[in-house]
Amino acid sequence: MQAVGMVVEYNPFHNGHHYFLHQAKEQTGAEVAVAVMSGDFTQRGEPTIVDKWTRAQAALKSGVDLVVELPVFYAVQPAHRFAAGALAILNALQVHRVAFGAEHPEWDFAALVAAEERFDQAEFGQYDATYATQFNEQLRSQTGLELRDPNDILAFAYTKAVLKNNYSIQLTPIRRRGSGYHDRQIHGQIASASAIRQAITTKNDFSNTVPPVMAEALARVSTVPDWSSLYPLLRNQLIQAPVEYLAQTYQMAEGLEHRMKEVAQRSLDFDEFIHGVKTKRYTYAHLLRMCLYTTLQLTEGEVADRFDHPYIHILGFTARGRQYLHQVKKQVPVPLFTKVSQGMRDGFYNLDYRAGKLYQNFTTVEQDLKHPPIMIR
Amino acid sequence: MQAVGMVVEYNPFHNGHHYFLHQAKEQTGAEVAVAVMSGDFTQRGEPTIVDKWTRAQAALKSGVDLVVELPVFYAVQPAHRFAAGALAILNALQVHRVAFGAEHPEWDFAALVAAEERFDQAEFGQYDATYATQFNEQLRSQTGLELRDPNDILAFAYTKAVLKNNYSIQLTPIRRRGSGYHDRQIHGQIASASAIRQAITTKNDFSNTVPPVMAEALARVSTVPDWSSLYPLLRNQLIQAPVEYLAQTYQMAEGLEHRMKEVAQRSLDFDEFIHGVKTKRYTYAHLLRMCLYTTLQLTEGEVADRFDHPYIHILGFTARGRQYLHQVKKQVPVPLFTKVSQGMRDGFYNLDYRAGKLYQNFTTVEQDLKHPPIMIR
Repeated sequence: MQAVGMVVEYNPFHNGHHYFLHQAKEQTGAEVAVAVMSGDFTQRGEPTIVDKWTRAQAALKSGVDLVVELPVFYAVQPAHRFAAGALAILNALQVHRVAFGAEHPEWDFAALVAAEERFDQAEFGQYDATYATQFNEQLRSQTGLELRDPNDILAFAYTKAVLKNNYSIQLTPIRRRGSGYHDRQIHGQIASASAIRQAITTKNDFSNTVPPVMAEALARVSTVPDWSSLYPLLRNQLIQAPVEYLAQTYQMAEGLEHRMKEVAQRSLDFDEFIHGVKTKRYTYAHLLRMCLYTTLQLTEGEVADRFDHPYIHILGFTARGRQYLHQVKKQVPVPLFTKVSQGMRDGFYNLDYRAGKLYQNFTTVEQDLKHPPIMIR
Repeated sequence: MQAVGMVVEYNPFHNGHHYFLHQAKEQTGAEVAVAVMSGDFTQRGEPTIVDKWTRAQAALKSGVDLVVELPVFYAVQPAHRFAAGALAILNALQVHRVAFGAEHPEWDFAALVAAEERFDQAEFGQYDATYATQFNEQLRSQTGLELRDPNDILAFAYTKAVLKNNYSIQLTPIRRRGSGYHDRQIHGQIASASAIRQAITTKNDFSNTVPPVMAEALARVSTVPDWSSLYPLLRNQLIQAPVEYLAQTYQMAEGLEHRMKEVAQRSLDFDEFIHGVKTKRYTYAHLLRMCLYTTLQLTEGEVADRFDHPYIHILGFTARGRQYLHQVKKQVPVPLFTKVSQGMRDGFYNLDYRAGKLYQNFTTVEQDLKHPPIMIR
């Protein structure tokens, strides 16, 4: 059996994902669909609308055969690290095709990756511009193109990961259909995940845009999980921890720890805090990730140590997914498991366990320890 | 002018405190009443029912002339350190009399202090008994008495502090009247602070037992501040911080950090947590204090450093209290101030500032920075 891999958040799983999934199978001819899915926190560092088990179940009931967790140290990262981590997992799972949504499937991303190698690193010294802005300035001057759409950015990152690691993975861009990533409106049965989240917050109808199993789960969501609810935890950490300790946080740089502490001391709610911390130097996504790293007390050392030593936590599978696992498991070069033991909790799985415990503030469900995988016939 | 000092929590300020205050002035003949009052957390490590400003105001309107804050590193401590800290502050304020409620004013506490010096330290090695139990075993064998009542324990600690430091302070025990410390019922106009807190929780009438200014403030309390509300903060700290970091917490010993982390991981609410952590070795009061030290990330070094370098934060005064301050301020050998500046916040006042920020979870009021003192004519 050949598998097609997909890198997903499914936040929530909706009809657009369902459409994409069947396109991916059709266009690649793969018999098995494998999704590597973010756990309880998104790439932007925000809690997901429902937990990873609920999202995995919806995906499995909708045609995905195997869902594995993208570890938090890959999942909550800028695009290049996110993509690198996700492809490392899919490659370990012996996936030879990876499909992804594309805004410009006609672009030669390999040529763009080659262009990046000619970048002048000295040009990245502007302190009043984000990294992305400076990156695009150089890319445009070399190729005439810019990576503005999130899908283009990811397509670039996937291409780079494959080339850099010599993966025998064929990338299959699939042209997006329906609402764009930033479209906040719901039209018909296809809507973006952010439009659906918005509809839940504003109590508007979205039930046509998600499969029934997801609609049921979302109907139980009374408050959309967000940083406002977690802010007391973040704020207490920023206030109580010594600034030298905060400085050891993963990606904390340029004295941001001082700024975050100072603003937290005077900010009673998260909106006030995040706007107080924002500068031209950092995107909101970067700052939201910094909030998560700080609340999880993630250190540079911990993340660096794990980054090159991934593992595969299986969240669930269908009968076909199980067959595929049997077929490949002996070739998988990293730890592969369905249940988190106490030893794993205190050992290599600890960062994901801690993220799950933070998410427990939104759901009383134990996210990891001894949680069995979802099995769909 | 001569002053009488009192060590208080006023949690809340009630008629029993009012009665005691006038007894103290009458029996000592003092013209000025000075109270050193715990800030926003009690000796047991719990948040106070209303903040220090509200409690100070009630006291000042009821006959206290000067209220100063007992710093958190003295206030949230076992009796001997609590008493030592409070008397250091009162001594610095040139108070020559200290009045306190007594269960056994007839006892010779100086003789009990002398007896303690003859204790066999090797006898304190029982790991299945609290320190207090082992202390009383030795005291009984030497003197036939035991320190069981909280007032007796404090009377002992005040006596020891005066003798050890050669303070020229005369201790004035005042026989308690009305309900005992542990009495949870309200009878008439005098009730214990714990009975009043209980009445607030159970929505029973307590308005006769507190002065009008306090009754007004308490009427605005919808939920009594407690550890249940702070538990998400404590839990996140216990889960996210490395065990080696938790081990550096003030008073953390005998591997308690491992036990607290393990129990926090599986406990969704505070009751479950604290019962899970409790052993014969530790009292609830000790464990509640450990919860506060952990949430404030207080280290041994920080507390040791401050313990011998107190300061006096004036919360409020009457005209008479102000006169007294003018009279004594040149003789006060420690920093004396009415407003917390940014420098003090980041410097010597930092521990109290952090405690105030934690308390801000119950009230949106800024507890310290630039807060003016209360002035009552």
